[in-house]
Amino acid sequence: MQPLNAAIAATSRPPVMEARRWLEGVTFPPERPLINVSQAAPVQPPPEPLRRAMADALLQQADAHLYGPVLGRPTLRDAVARDWSRDYGGTIRPAQVAITQGCNQAFCAVMQTLAGPGDQIILPLPWYFNHKMWLDMQGIGAVGLHCGQGMIPDAAEAEKLLTDRTRAIVLVSPNNPSGAEYPAETLRAFMTLARARGIALILDETYRDFDSRDGAPHDLFTDPDWADTLIHLYSFSKAYRLTGHRVGALIASEARMVQVEKFLDTVAICASQIGQIGAEWGMAHLGDWLAGERAEILARRAAMQAAMADLPGWQVKGCGAYFAWVEHPFDMASDQLAKRLVADAGVLMLPGTMFMPDGDAQGARHLRIAFANVDAQGIAALAGRLAAFRP
Amino acid sequence: MQPLNAAIAATSRPPVMEARRWLEGVTFPPERPLINVSQAAPVQPPPEPLRRAMADALLQQADAHLYGPVLGRPTLRDAVARDWSRDYGGTIRPAQVAITQGCNQAFCAVMQTLAGPGDQIILPLPWYFNHKMWLDMQGIGAVGLHCGQGMIPDAAEAEKLLTDRTRAIVLVSPNNPSGAEYPAETLRAFMTLARARGIALILDETYRDFDSRDGAPHDLFTDPDWADTLIHLYSFSKAYRLTGHRVGALIASEARMVQVEKFLDTVAICASQIGQIGAEWGMAHLGDWLAGERAEILARRAAMQAAMADLPGWQVKGCGAYFAWVEHPFDMASDQLAKRLVADAGVLMLPGTMFMPDGDAQGARHLRIAFANVDAQGIAALAGRLAAFRP
Repeated sequence: MQPLNAAIAATSRPPVMEARRWLEGVTFPPERPLINVSQAAPVQPPPEPLRRAMADALLQQADAHLYGPVLGRPTLRDAVARDWSRDYGGTIRPAQVAITQGCNQAFCAVMQTLAGPGDQIILPLPWYFNHKMWLDMQGIGAVGLHCGQGMIPDAAEAEKLLTDRTRAIVLVSPNNPSGAEYPAETLRAFMTLARARGIALILDETYRDFDSRDGAPHDLFTDPDWADTLIHLYSFSKAYRLTGHRVGALIASEARMVQVEKFLDTVAICASQIGQIGAEWGMAHLGDWLAGERAEILARRAAMQAAMADLPGWQVKGCGAYFAWVEHPFDMASDQLAKRLVADAGVLMLPGTMFMPDGDAQGARHLRIAFANVDAQGIAALAGRLAAFRP
Repeated sequence: MQPLNAAIAATSRPPVMEARRWLEGVTFPPERPLINVSQAAPVQPPPEPLRRAMADALLQQADAHLYGPVLGRPTLRDAVARDWSRDYGGTIRPAQVAITQGCNQAFCAVMQTLAGPGDQIILPLPWYFNHKMWLDMQGIGAVGLHCGQGMIPDAAEAEKLLTDRTRAIVLVSPNNPSGAEYPAETLRAFMTLARARGIALILDETYRDFDSRDGAPHDLFTDPDWADTLIHLYSFSKAYRLTGHRVGALIASEARMVQVEKFLDTVAICASQIGQIGAEWGMAHLGDWLAGERAEILARRAAMQAAMADLPGWQVKGCGAYFAWVEHPFDMASDQLAKRLVADAGVLMLPGTMFMPDGDAQGARHLRIAFANVDAQGIAALAGRLAAFRP
């Protein structure tokens, strides 16, 4: 019998894959097909011009198939630095940008540079499960911060949780799983706290392209010294429907990039070249298309809120970007309820228990609905099935 | 000032990127262009039919752009299980195969399942630097095993290094950086040792498609209980020139796959779908082409050995697959020599110091030549420049 690292053995299994296993052996009649609101992922491919640009690159560019620099293609790093500087009204240099094999990897990379076994990281609750899983397998303590009204975390509450082992606070806005859009002043308060305590503020803005607010969602990059505290994460997957190509980005100080490069070289060597080519093409050509995507997601969000408001006993605690975080009315834990909903309602969604510490009562009371992939008609159908469900 | 994890700060920087920095500011005259033998990577894109198959998939298959299963596309896992079972004369089930974002990630994933801080791993010397870097950043001890004649490690010598913290022995065959092809009986002896001591044997066969021996290079998979000890790693990058797509594989017990899936979900979510589609197409259609590639590499290997044999004072210690491990005749450490060779000979190769523990005399005496990308004419030019070089 081979050795087994206790830290990974104690880490939970991937929630999305576990939820998929609930579908095994269940048949969904044609008149009531499965409504899958479990994963935050586009279900359509990228628009045709982007697909064509990528196909042409595969045929005509040798470098689309060969190793590239560890920290990413220089033209993509330049484009991110330029557009982010413009959008956030600050100064971000290309050397402060790294391209990763998806945004999860960006998180793992920066965490590797910040913390080791026994250190602690503050995560608002509910947390994004892959963040928790990485901390678990690395032996880093995840310290949960309960959110207040509107699922917004409070820097003053976070301050009470800081210890001499705290290395960073991680915020996701718009949030996964709660959908909450964190106000600029909330982010500023966390930045001030992190800087005062000499820890990092990691801000994951994977869903920023679907934020309902116009303009920059915060002013943190306007601070000329942002790089002493702020680390920003981003994903090209949602904006351009490139989930299967695995392209993300992280923005941090040049000093930290020296460390990030070690991690990425060892785990990745480089991100997919064709994925990077696609992301760069999308940034250059799909601005209007993306604005339309955002408008559609915001319309679905409104439909979601309206549909849930009519649903007796259910309560929407947060709703934005791809997600709604909802409280259910049943005398049943969410993980049991989620399995029942597959069989009895033909609906797959993730239970709150997957986003909360074991035993936390909030986990049992809530569910995450990744509604962004369902159109208005589908959202109505979803609400209808939830209304008809009897436990 | 933000926190810095001491383990990654102590990890060395990526050698290939460091070597590229030696090129900055150096000009290479047209009559003597740079000969770059620093990285084990194809410099040509995949053959045209494979490029076209991948381009067609991008245009026609939505799933080429979307998330896939964490452990890989089922059809690719099936193909690997089928072909490996045939090639190695054993039984490998699809559930024992995982697809990763390159073979480096396969190593990181299995290591995460095996060992934690304070544990130890045996690596023959010279080692593959990314293996050492991952162990360093994870706080796992890398225990170097000096090789004997022909750069072949000895299981009896390895046994002397085992402690109660040893979790695995890692072998790379054909070897990076030494080029050595490990005999089947050597691999069997390591398997017997690992099983007797309840540790894992990790066998990285990234370069197996360029092994000079015909047929299976070992019989380990014919053992019906192989999965209790053996973990096999592979890369599609070299065989099909897909380095920029990042597709690797690992084969291990189903029980270990439960743990591997946690790591891959958190760091990767999934490997590139188009890379996987390309790898599967290559396996199905490029057998004859790959045989030709192998013949060409073997011809280059012969040219390399002949050229080096004529070079006064230089000695080839190992030569196979993509690499030669050579002893130089100069009274100068290899890291200094490698930089001098850039400026004075227009040759970029990696110094032995990058593959050995700090202070090990063997590191200073040797260099790695990744000759596979250079044709016979280029190899002759390389030898000529080394012959003319005066320190």
